[in-house]
Amino acid sequence: MKFNIAQPNQSLKVELLHKINQKTKPPGSLGFLEPIALQIGLIQNTLMPRLNKPALLVFAGDHGVVDAGVSPYPQAVTAQMVLNFLRGGAAINVFARQSNIQLRVVDAGVNHSFDNHPDLIHAKVGFGTRNFLLEPAMTLEQCEQALTKGAELARNEISAGCNVLGFGEMGIGNTSSASCLMSVLCNIPIEQCVGRGTGFDDAGLAKKTAILKQALAQHQLNDGNAMQVLATFGGFEIAMMAGAMLGAAQQNAVLLIDGFIATAALLVAYHLQPNILHYCIFAHCSGEAGHRQLLAHLHVKPLLDAGLRLGEGTGAALAYPMVQAAVNFLNEMASFESAGISEKSVAGE
Amino acid sequence: MKFNIAQPNQSLKVELLHKINQKTKPPGSLGFLEPIALQIGLIQNTLMPRLNKPALLVFAGDHGVVDAGVSPYPQAVTAQMVLNFLRGGAAINVFARQSNIQLRVVDAGVNHSFDNHPDLIHAKVGFGTRNFLLEPAMTLEQCEQALTKGAELARNEISAGCNVLGFGEMGIGNTSSASCLMSVLCNIPIEQCVGRGTGFDDAGLAKKTAILKQALAQHQLNDGNAMQVLATFGGFEIAMMAGAMLGAAQQNAVLLIDGFIATAALLVAYHLQPNILHYCIFAHCSGEAGHRQLLAHLHVKPLLDAGLRLGEGTGAALAYPMVQAAVNFLNEMASFESAGISEKSVAGE
Repeated sequence: MKFNIAQPNQSLKVELLHKINQKTKPPGSLGFLEPIALQIGLIQNTLMPRLNKPALLVFAGDHGVVDAGVSPYPQAVTAQMVLNFLRGGAAINVFARQSNIQLRVVDAGVNHSFDNHPDLIHAKVGFGTRNFLLEPAMTLEQCEQALTKGAELARNEISAGCNVLGFGEMGIGNTSSASCLMSVLCNIPIEQCVGRGTGFDDAGLAKKTAILKQALAQHQLNDGNAMQVLATFGGFEIAMMAGAMLGAAQQNAVLLIDGFIATAALLVAYHLQPNILHYCIFAHCSGEAGHRQLLAHLHVKPLLDAGLRLGEGTGAALAYPMVQAAVNFLNEMASFESAGISEKSVAGE
Repeated sequence: MKFNIAQPNQSLKVELLHKINQKTKPPGSLGFLEPIALQIGLIQNTLMPRLNKPALLVFAGDHGVVDAGVSPYPQAVTAQMVLNFLRGGAAINVFARQSNIQLRVVDAGVNHSFDNHPDLIHAKVGFGTRNFLLEPAMTLEQCEQALTKGAELARNEISAGCNVLGFGEMGIGNTSSASCLMSVLCNIPIEQCVGRGTGFDDAGLAKKTAILKQALAQHQLNDGNAMQVLATFGGFEIAMMAGAMLGAAQQNAVLLIDGFIATAALLVAYHLQPNILHYCIFAHCSGEAGHRQLLAHLHVKPLLDAGLRLGEGTGAALAYPMVQAAVNFLNEMASFESAGISEKSVAGE
């Protein structure tokens, strides 16, 4: 799989900034919405950007490392939650419905065989990864397969008219996977990358940290080869999500990055193609420990900071109206000139 | 004007918490949305709350203290922005439209005579307040009149079927008014309550601070009489907004509090009727200096923290989808039992 992501064309930057600053408001007073309006204008290379057919891909996969006791929930919950997504009963269903976001559930590697369903995409790489405490989670071939499939899924959405794509996940144990990816690729001690996941107490957190420390010591990887790091510690859903992010950015879509796991997938994608960052809007800062530092490592600011730590793409869906608002103010607000309003008066100072 | 705001009935609290915790998600993983779902359930005294006919009242008024040079914009901008609201060209128009929020513009005391317009409510108490550097901004009678009128406007919305009401404002100079209200009612030095408003530089900020310090020294008030503090430093739009908040809470509406000015109005209302806090959702933390500390003083957490500092109710409109999401997850998500999903497993730990 070859990706080649370029920085968006910057030729409209001055005009976009001028348009933003001429809106009937004090300069900068729309906060984070202003750089997002600029970013989307640059991605779409227009002064009148549009968000079309928003979609959210939720990648699900199981993790062999759950055998080691890194989650308080049993592995079966991954498949149960996929069925819950398909029945429309999960948080992400509710939030996607509210904002008219098309939700697609991708079986990237759940340890369960699902029947066909209109909202389910069969893309299984395997029935869960191997336990990375003992051996790499997947082979390099599986990792390539997941990336390629992810990119294909993103291209399919974009071919159907979508130009803004959110990314979510479900996978019992995947905070462990994400923590290891972060620790190796950011070169940050694992203790600062591990959190309580779906609900560990202090003892559970200490145990999880010790297990992950052991796994990192076992594989002795560094940030020099992101594909190998991904294959060793990744999940199928994380690898496929990284591929989908790369595929979407390559097609000039706006990427809505959800929480800790989605940002870990983006981190891998960023190591492969640093320009991907220009296409990303970070939806929220998760309550999961490690996410704030991961966002800081990427030098990015999330839209929301509301203590969410559920995954599934819920943060991306909840942030979507803010992204829509950024596009709307750019297109719909009057300018000082058109509204006949005095700009900031020097005499007043 | 007599207000009498009771704490919402708490009898459903245990059932509401149980319902929230039985949703198919780890406990607490929806962050700030969970206490909001509980709060709205308690306000409406039901396990199935609904948000009906959301409305946003934008109160506009002029400030005599602008004569002293506390804003870089001329006073005429208040009326110009009201006309911009009525033409649909301001940020709040864009965001209210996006979320189907009914916008009403209230002339509480702009220094301009407006023609009739279907979205404009004529409620003028005067053509701007007096300069509180020299004398109280308004008489106690005017202050009472503004409060009473505000409560009436809120009741009108609620009679028409609205049960969630947002509050915004427009008034050149009103960050000065809000800063003085905060300083006196919270007993916090004025330096910590003053910000750049619509766009002062360092010198402008220093001048504004010095002027407000002088005004506070002149009137020598303390937090013992909120009505007198409001009459002395308030704006007509701030007083009328405080009245509308009190009227709305008394009718069991959900109150969406916008930024620094709206929170200052709420602070006054809170001094008159402390139970009002139970009805308030704080939309965002403004980029305007002082707001973070004001929210901390009230021991409340805002939903958004995205550097907004525009007023007009823009933060309230942008936060509304999050509030809707809180209600929606409570009503629409499956429970562990209904979805047949394993709860957190003790064996897994």
